[in-house]
Order: sequence, then C-alpha cells, then structure tokens
Amino acid sequence: MGVGPLTDPVDQIFTEGINEVIVTTYNNAAPMGIIRKNDSLSMIVFRTSHTAQNIIRNGWIVAHISHDPILFVKTAFEDLSEESFIQELIGNRIIHRLRGIQNWICCNAHIEHTTPDKLFVRLEPIHVNITQVLPIPVHRGLNNIIEATVHATRFILNEDPELARFIRHHGELVLRCGGEQDKRAMRLLYEYVNTAVPGTFL
Amino acid sequence: MGVGPLTDPVDQIFTEGINEVIVTTYNNAAPMGIIRKNDSLSMIVFRTSHTAQNIIRNGWIVAHISHDPILFVKTAFEDLSEESFIQELIGNRIIHRLRGIQNWICCNAHIEHTTPDKLFVRLEPIHVNITQVLPIPVHRGLNNIIEATVHATRFILNEDPELARFIRHHGELVLRCGGEQDKRAMRLLYEYVNTAVPGTFL
Repeated sequence: MGVGPLTDPVDQIFTEGINEVIVTTYNNAAPMGIIRKNDSLSMIVFRTSHTAQNIIRNGWIVAHISHDPILFVKTAFEDLSEESFIQELIGNRIIHRLRGIQNWICCNAHIEHTTPDKLFVRLEPIHVNITQVLPIPVHRGLNNIIEATVHATRFILNEDPELARFIRHHGELVLRCGGEQDKRAMRLLYEYVNTAVPGTFL
Repeated sequence: MGVGPLTDPVDQIFTEGINEVIVTTYNNAAPMGIIRKNDSLSMIVFRTSHTAQNIIRNGWIVAHISHDPILFVKTAFEDLSEESFIQELIGNRIIHRLRGIQNWICCNAHIEHTTPDKLFVRLEPIHVNITQVLPIPVHRGLNNIIEATVHATRFILNEDPELARFIRHHGELVLRCGGEQDKRAMRLLYEYVNTAVPGTFL
C-alpha cells in the first residue's frame, strides 16, 4: 500500500522514521509527524483535530519544512490568523499554505483506515516547492522545543504528571542550549499549558 | 572578545545557542557543541579530552555538519581509525578532517580562559567548505540520539541513575520515532554504556 518508490527531491527530504513538519489543511496549520516507512509516507491524525476533519473533507495537505521554534509551539496550541495563509491552485484544487515558508510539498491525503480515535493517512506528493539551502547543524535548543511541544499537547489531554516532568526537563535544556527564539518559544509553551491546566508551571 | 560580525555562510549556518557538530583535531573526532552568542563562536572543552590536548598544542579545529546518528554515537565513545581522516593544507597548517563529509568549517581555536576542568575556546572561522543541500525536517529519531549521547557521556563519568533514566526515555523514543540507522545508533550507544558501566541497560 506504499506510494511506491519516492521521487527526488521528496526521497531525500524525508528519511525513515518521523519527520516533524508544519502541516496545513483548509485555513489550518499544525505540527505533525510525517512517517516514512518502506518508501511510503503517512501520518496518524487524531479524529478530533481540525487537520483530520479537513483531510476527510478535502483530501489534501501541505507539509512545510521549518526550523522555527515559535511556529511549532504556536501552531500546536492556537489557530493562525487567515492572513497567515496563501491560497494557491495546484491541479484543480485551491490549497492553503503558509506565507513566508519557502519549502513545501503538497500531497494527496488518502485515508487508509480509521479507529475510533485516529485516522491513518497515506500521503502522495503531487507538487514540490523546494529550494536548496545552507546545511545547518542539529540544534539542541530547537530539538528540546519539539520534544516539549509533543509532550505538552499530550499533557493537556491527560494531565499525566510524568509528562509535566519531561516538559520541565526540556525547558531547562532550552534555557541552557537555546537562543533567544528558543527561549521565547519555551515561555510561550509554558503559557499555553498553564492556560489549559492552571498552575502546572510556576 | 567576540569574533566580530560573522560572515556568510558561517553566519547563517550557526544560530544562537548550541549547534551540535563533529569536531576534528589532530587524528581525533568528537561530537561538540559550538556556542553562538553575541555573534561570536566558542566551545567549552573538558581538559581531559583529546580535543583539549590537541587544541592546546595546535590551535585549530574543523567543525563538520552531519546528521548521521551513528557518527555522533561512535565519535562520542571511540577513536576513529586513521583512514577516517583526510589531511589538507589550510594556510600554513595541515588540518585533519573527516572523509566523506561535504560540509566543514576550519577554525582557529584560541584559548580564552581555563578552569581546572575546562577550556573556554574562542573559534575564528578561517576556511569554509559548504555546498547547498536540500532542506530537511527536524527528525525526532536523530534528536533523541543526540540527547541520549550527551547524557551517556556524562553518565559514564558520574553514574547518576537520573541520567540512565533519561537515556532509556530517549531510547524508547528512538524505537518509536527513528529509522533503522537511528535504532542501530541507539543499540551501539547502549553497548558503549554497558561496557563502561556493566549492567546499566539490560
């Protein structure tokens, strides 16, 4: 059920395992993990999310490659304004992508199977907008923001204190290893969590 | 005491905070964090390391940009063979860099100050070998390998069980989020730790 051998440049961009991108659907953006396995691309999406509802209705997503810590945190916890999106005609559909992000891949999104909670979505790249960039090193500030964001979205649902402990651990590393943007992103994350679960982080 | 305004492309490659690279010195390679702060680049190096001894003697390093999880783990825990290095004349010095890595920056390494344990080293880029690449997404497999590696090098020194817990946490995430290379790197890491501190990971 794979997409078959991937074609360049998508083949080189997504490596085996989970690739963290910002996914847009109709008027919506959220951080998502794109799974590459056996040369096929897929995503697992919670049914309650806007992303799931939009995929069911429209059958497309746009995956944006970004290293902006603020964007990851913001799109995890709030809706972006309508002006954040650019509409573009791809094939015979209008897609919504993020303004100011140069590298994006538009995909058909096929629902392969569902559970009561989740959609299993196969992705088929149909349009690629990629420009070469300077290579950048792994950055522990950004990495720890991503880890904290994943834990925080789950913590808000289940309030597991173990997750709060991990979030704090990653927050301390962001203070030690991050730049100003990473630290701003982490403060923002603490605010979102405290709004959802008052008193978690003092 | 900064290097002054950084010049492109180094300015765009290293962002504020800690940038994880593979640093070579004379016949030696190790993962290191290059710190960018106030437009200057620096590293903090443990005096007991080969890297520190070589910097004191020779005054240069080469920073390699890599996203290879195996290379990060291997160079953290063992010495690479001599054939892993290429010698190259930069200015009036022979430097040693890693075979097969396209993107590297050779720097003068000035010791700014020292403590009984550490060297504080200011880096001044003097030669840049950088080719543009396809943009790649943040990858949680690789990220969790990097976090586990940092904890593991410290765990071997102090055997703090809290660090072993974090290593195991990151290892579980690598199993969930990583590709085959990431999983191989994690198995290698567990082996190195178990050799240094028998019985840590069963």
